[in-house]
Amino acid sequence: MIASERYAERLDRAQALTAERGIGALLIGVGADLRYITGYAAMPLERLTMLVVPAAGAPTLVAPRLEAMAAVGAPGVRAAGIEVVPWDETDDAHALLRGLAGPGATKAGARILVSDRLWAMHVLGIQRVLPEARLGLATEILRVLRMVKDPDEVQLLRLAAHAADRVVGQIAAGRLVGRTEAEVSREVKDRLIAEGHEHAEFAIVAAGPNSASPHHDATDREIRAGEPIVLDIGGSLVGYGSDTTRTLWVTGGDPAVGPTDEFRAMFDVLQDAQALATAAVRPGASCESIDRAARDRITAAGYGPQFLHRVGHGIGLEAHEEPYLVAGNAEPLVAGVAFSVEPGIYLEGRFGARIEDIVVCGPDGPDVLNQSDRGLWIVDG
Amino acid sequence: MIASERYAERLDRAQALTAERGIGALLIGVGADLRYITGYAAMPLERLTMLVVPAAGAPTLVAPRLEAMAAVGAPGVRAAGIEVVPWDETDDAHALLRGLAGPGATKAGARILVSDRLWAMHVLGIQRVLPEARLGLATEILRVLRMVKDPDEVQLLRLAAHAADRVVGQIAAGRLVGRTEAEVSREVKDRLIAEGHEHAEFAIVAAGPNSASPHHDATDREIRAGEPIVLDIGGSLVGYGSDTTRTLWVTGGDPAVGPTDEFRAMFDVLQDAQALATAAVRPGASCESIDRAARDRITAAGYGPQFLHRVGHGIGLEAHEEPYLVAGNAEPLVAGVAFSVEPGIYLEGRFGARIEDIVVCGPDGPDVLNQSDRGLWIVDG
Repeated sequence: MIASERYAERLDRAQALTAERGIGALLIGVGADLRYITGYAAMPLERLTMLVVPAAGAPTLVAPRLEAMAAVGAPGVRAAGIEVVPWDETDDAHALLRGLAGPGATKAGARILVSDRLWAMHVLGIQRVLPEARLGLATEILRVLRMVKDPDEVQLLRLAAHAADRVVGQIAAGRLVGRTEAEVSREVKDRLIAEGHEHAEFAIVAAGPNSASPHHDATDREIRAGEPIVLDIGGSLVGYGSDTTRTLWVTGGDPAVGPTDEFRAMFDVLQDAQALATAAVRPGASCESIDRAARDRITAAGYGPQFLHRVGHGIGLEAHEEPYLVAGNAEPLVAGVAFSVEPGIYLEGRFGARIEDIVVCGPDGPDVLNQSDRGLWIVDG
Repeated sequence: MIASERYAERLDRAQALTAERGIGALLIGVGADLRYITGYAAMPLERLTMLVVPAAGAPTLVAPRLEAMAAVGAPGVRAAGIEVVPWDETDDAHALLRGLAGPGATKAGARILVSDRLWAMHVLGIQRVLPEARLGLATEILRVLRMVKDPDEVQLLRLAAHAADRVVGQIAAGRLVGRTEAEVSREVKDRLIAEGHEHAEFAIVAAGPNSASPHHDATDREIRAGEPIVLDIGGSLVGYGSDTTRTLWVTGGDPAVGPTDEFRAMFDVLQDAQALATAAVRPGASCESIDRAARDRITAAGYGPQFLHRVGHGIGLEAHEEPYLVAGNAEPLVAGVAFSVEPGIYLEGRFGARIEDIVVCGPDGPDVLNQSDRGLWIVDG
């Protein structure tokens, strides 16, 4: 759990950075940024809920009146003594923002930063009531805070990772042949919940040629003996994400339909690449260098064009967040940054494979949160 | 299920309305608008996926390369022959839009409409690459289409409503006293899934004084005999939403702790108000008149200020969508419009109640989809 006083510290730091960078105000809608600063996990709905952090002066939380009781009770709202400003159903909620955003936000050319997943209806509403401002993304400030996890956050990520590991083991030990991808996907979600997740956000079960589609949606295709399955599962546990991928080969108990030599050779390259990328994690290494470590190995084996996505993404209160481990991102890692390491190789129309762990950059190297076997899981199914 | 050819018709209508209203282009991100037009239910992630509908010429679907296989397979993408334009991890995805949006979108003063829940990161990206355009919300076009449900959509809403009704019955018949709100909330979600929902989005279980908070988050408070519970549950079934509220009174089997006279009197007013609002539904009645029908009754009984939200919201591919049944919305209902009718009365710190049905405006009056008893459910628990 995150201690209440942490929220007040986070708010103070966000406001200090806002002032320091000459920004007029932060306008934070429902989502991970709001949860990070206030502990308020509001449902994303069309009514405006918004934390207003002026460069100086008291922050306020604008909320629809019917959410006000819940907003007032959020741990960070209590801890920091944030005033909740309710609005009624027939009010112009956006118009309230102008009076609360502080003098720095209403000057000509002021910069206002909005949360990166704020809905267009609210972005355009803000531009209407604060026409003199130039909008940017609050990621600029929040990424500085959210990227570096404190020990409590790492512990929650670890618990989530271990829960997902257990589900991989349970699925691999169960029946697969003759069931549809969609049935297995449903079982994954049920098991994630049973293992303590509050949300089971995704459960990719991609069998046979579908394994070559990185973000395959589970279908009614039946799983057969003699084919691979890419299992990419995750959700959130006390707000923090899990995300792990393992590749299985289903034999139906018949050793004659084990993995082909071609598949084994490809998988060995992939496993090597994943290990190399993980081993490259240390403070000071650039985000793109982790991607490169995996990509160089895969490219050398001739599969370069078939590794068609970045090697990883940050993870925390969101399933995908800063930093992104992708070519062109020279940002250096620091201790406490958490992200996925997940190279894949996809031969369209034939087969594919992916291996994914959540890794935290430790002071001396990688702290790998997932603990299940990274090799090819050859199972009866 | 929605027939594939419906998607092509919807796209044609959206494009025709775009041209007719002098709009340069529609830019539709991941979400209900995209699903409505293409049947593509993509996961909302930070990589840009966007349907580009120019006022004239061929629409395209911009998608990250790793989603392209899934995008190409969406029923409406196939049916309408929409070209999928993939982008790679290091491309500037927003920059692609300029070339695809058509000549009407790059003229000075062009109007471009974006989907109303598009994330700020993409709204600002569009403003960067199409600086001459003024942005508005695609709701302007999509609401015309999405508000009026066709018979297949009404059937899906009906199936979802009946599934939710069964869950209310199951929960009311089960044990409640001594369990926490959160435990019961979890059971609701499991049962929604068991009854055919693919997502169980919310399960408000608000017991005792918590019943006075309209959007209460289920807590670890234990349910006791002699108190009310507001049960507001829903999710989606084949994409279409359920949303129903019933108020229970838990006796623990002891008739001595049945509902108080004060609670009964308040509840009778509420039930009357809900029936009056439902009875007011017919083509030509304004959205606000449905709200007023409930509000007048509640106000006459002295509870006006305690009915602190609008009477309802549209429902379809989104849990909340157009039209909103709220004071100030003079829009007339037409046959096929689907929405909630859900007055509530909330006495802060003491107790509250709400009754909610999903109602479709039929040619001659209301078609009420929920079928469970609307009265106060007095249960042993």
